Amino acid sequence: MNAPARNDKETVVAAAMRVLAENGLPGLSMRRIADELEVQVSALYWHFPNKQALLAAVSAQIAGASTASDQMDAVARGLRDRLLAHRDGAEIVSSSLALGMLDLPARAELVRAAREIGLDAAAAEVAADTVVHYVIGYTFHEQQRLHAAVVGAADASVDLVPAGAQHGSDDFAAGLAMVIAGVHASASIR
Amino acid sequence: MNAPARNDKETVVAAAMRVLAENGLPGLSMRRIADELEVQVSALYWHFPNKQALLAAVSAQIAGASTASDQMDAVARGLRDRLLAHRDGAEIVSSSLALGMLDLPARAELVRAAREIGLDAAAAEVAADTVVHYVIGYTFHEQQRLHAAVVGAADASVDLVPAGAQHGSDDFAAGLAMVIAGVHASASIR
Repeated sequence: MNAPARNDKETVVAAAMRVLAENGLPGLSMRRIADELEVQVSALYWHFPNKQALLAAVSAQIAGASTASDQMDAVARGLRDRLLAHRDGAEIVSSSLALGMLDLPARAELVRAAREIGLDAAAAEVAADTVVHYVIGYTFHEQQRLHAAVVGAADASVDLVPAGAQHGSDDFAAGLAMVIAGVHASASIR
Repeated sequence: MNAPARNDKETVVAAAMRVLAENGLPGLSMRRIADELEVQVSALYWHFPNKQALLAAVSAQIAGASTASDQMDAVARGLRDRLLAHRDGAEIVSSSLALGMLDLPARAELVRAAREIGLDAAAAEVAADTVVHYVIGYTFHEQQRLHAAVVGAADASVDLVPAGAQHGSDDFAAGLAMVIAGVHASASIR
């Protein structure tokens, strides 16, 4: 009978998620994750070859599995909600995507949804990337404002109250509707 | 007769631009800017109340003045070119925008262009923000990949060769066309 490994990959990622929630991305160091697990830093490298690989696993956890939707709108909103649910979620996912280390389930769903609308394969890839860039760009901006407001660096116009958040969601939805209208327009002119 | 101040605001911003070009945003410290000018760090605070204010001035320099265009497409491409012309340009401008410390000339032009297309005032603001989020999101992604490739952190699929850059520009333009088609669609259903 095998005892479960005390620090398997999932345990390390779970510890990293706790450190992220507590310290944000700038404070997400291998040292702090090791301290959280009460192990040496070197033990982390048994599971992940480098910090980028660990951040990619954290990003995959944040981005979640498929949203099981075939509507671009719902997929995009689902992705935004997941990014917003984690401190610095947009920045960490954006970084892993840029490194080519994250396979975003939402992107594959967006490609499928764009094909359904009538786009060819190449255009569907562009449409998916455009929606992803919009969602991540918008949400990163929101989370930067939030962070700045918390540390007192932003001016007084930054909204943190529920009414402000609601306003942000409305603007996000309106912009998303424009992007998706553009995807439909691209389909109809083919 | 007054001698010109040796370290006026413009001189400080110019020094900051050189430090940015050399060290990137992570290395853009008040200490390095002061060293570049051969002054004490405290001298910088005579011109800027804090680092955010100095970064905002750098961002304004990067973002440039008006592009003098009334076409959304040209304004968006002009903004991207300016961000790409500076190391970490998208990240630094994005950060200043999030802090509410940067008045982006391109955004005002996008609002005007959207009004010309037929959007009402509120929709034109949403359209401008959507284009700005797309441009900054896309360009930030590109610059992150570039940075990762330089430090060897990205996988081999990252393109740095001209052919790859051309591919990136084509994808950017195709996505931008979708976003702008969506703005036009929003105008026509009003």
